[in-house]
Amino acid sequence: MYRAIFFDLSGVLYNGSEAVPGAREAIERAQTSALQVRFVTNTSRRTAAQLVTDLAALGFRLDPATLYTAPRAARSWVERHGLRPYCLIHRDIRSEFADLEQQDPNAVVIGDAAEGFTYGALDRAFQLCQGGAPLVGIGRNRYFRLDGQLHLDAGPFITAIEVAAGCDAVVIGKPSAAFFEQVLASTNAAPSEVLMIGDDVYGDVEGALAAGLGGCLVRTGKYQSGDEQLIEGEFACVASVSEAVELALG
Amino acid sequence: MYRAIFFDLSGVLYNGSEAVPGAREAIERAQTSALQVRFVTNTSRRTAAQLVTDLAALGFRLDPATLYTAPRAARSWVERHGLRPYCLIHRDIRSEFADLEQQDPNAVVIGDAAEGFTYGALDRAFQLCQGGAPLVGIGRNRYFRLDGQLHLDAGPFITAIEVAAGCDAVVIGKPSAAFFEQVLASTNAAPSEVLMIGDDVYGDVEGALAAGLGGCLVRTGKYQSGDEQLIEGEFACVASVSEAVELALG
Repeated sequence: MYRAIFFDLSGVLYNGSEAVPGAREAIERAQTSALQVRFVTNTSRRTAAQLVTDLAALGFRLDPATLYTAPRAARSWVERHGLRPYCLIHRDIRSEFADLEQQDPNAVVIGDAAEGFTYGALDRAFQLCQGGAPLVGIGRNRYFRLDGQLHLDAGPFITAIEVAAGCDAVVIGKPSAAFFEQVLASTNAAPSEVLMIGDDVYGDVEGALAAGLGGCLVRTGKYQSGDEQLIEGEFACVASVSEAVELALG
Repeated sequence: MYRAIFFDLSGVLYNGSEAVPGAREAIERAQTSALQVRFVTNTSRRTAAQLVTDLAALGFRLDPATLYTAPRAARSWVERHGLRPYCLIHRDIRSEFADLEQQDPNAVVIGDAAEGFTYGALDRAFQLCQGGAPLVGIGRNRYFRLDGQLHLDAGPFITAIEVAAGCDAVVIGKPSAAFFEQVLASTNAAPSEVLMIGDDVYGDVEGALAAGLGGCLVRTGKYQSGDEQLIEGEFACVASVSEAVELALG
């Protein structure tokens, strides 16, 4: 039934610095099956290279070519459009954008900037967008879970600038259909032959369904009781990634 | 035709520390006419007492009883509901809330906190609202003009918390109909006998129209060319407050 399986990372493979129980075995099982495996993340606090290293330290082995990150996709988009971005991003991913011209900015990029979300920086982003600069969002996640608590992610800040400047952000990463399609294009699967597994009912599951993919919500990570009732459409809801892989293998 | 006239303050009577040309005379003309005069502001960087002093320094004389401020209305709302607010407000209006219990908060109040909008403070507000604490917004203004530039106001931050926590703010102040009705109740005018004058096409004009009042947009303050096309409904659009008072006097 499924020819490809897409995994979200945080909350699915690991929580903070702990692997989800059974996740290593589940990923290996998928990687050694006939399924085409991809990793699809909006994480904008780590570069793609750092993620591969982090995952290795947790015992996950993955081919860097199978990893699709929203910051890298955002960087490509900005470069393709020849823009000079004002980057409201986490200090740890500045290197992903470092080779782009950023003087006299004519675009705004917003990721999970964490403490970088100061009033001054947000006000600057607003003024640029108000003057017509395109707004690029790295994902639109509302919150993430860390150390047992939910925390604000980039989404609400992107919405704040949209509301203030009266503009619509170009959202790169989940739940953008273009991002799912980019990953899909690297496989030979039809949309309906892909199962997207995630803990974010909006970004992972609703986004996947909107792009025509199958969706599977795991009850780990940021999942909260009742999340599966928040969206329309048919999708699976399972205990964790192990069960999700079983489901994909049929 | 009109029995009462409501004036927004910033951008209508003054810009920064300068009175709008002709504004002093216009206010005096209204105050010495048969019109009932009220001042209605969302400003959440100054207490009501400070505003009266500021206005006096600019040559405007007004009875403090005719001044309705959103922070004061928000404070009343919180007190009436017996809540302990986490206040994300400007340091200069902390005194308006100082006598409320704020330990172990079970509500969130957001005004124009300016530099107080840090990631940590917004994250705390999100966590409280996510846990069910009501969110009280002091106005929902998108931006204000200062020293020739537009700057982010409280509205986009209120929206950010709503989006993140999946809640709806109780907005006190313009454009809330309840706030206009509170001011209206202090007059003996019917809604249609009131002209609300402001430079914010959403907060002042759209809000007034929604409450059944007449609206008049002035082309001073934060007004930008084309603002009058942003909303539906019939309202006047004039050069400045002088012309608005003439209009109200018929």
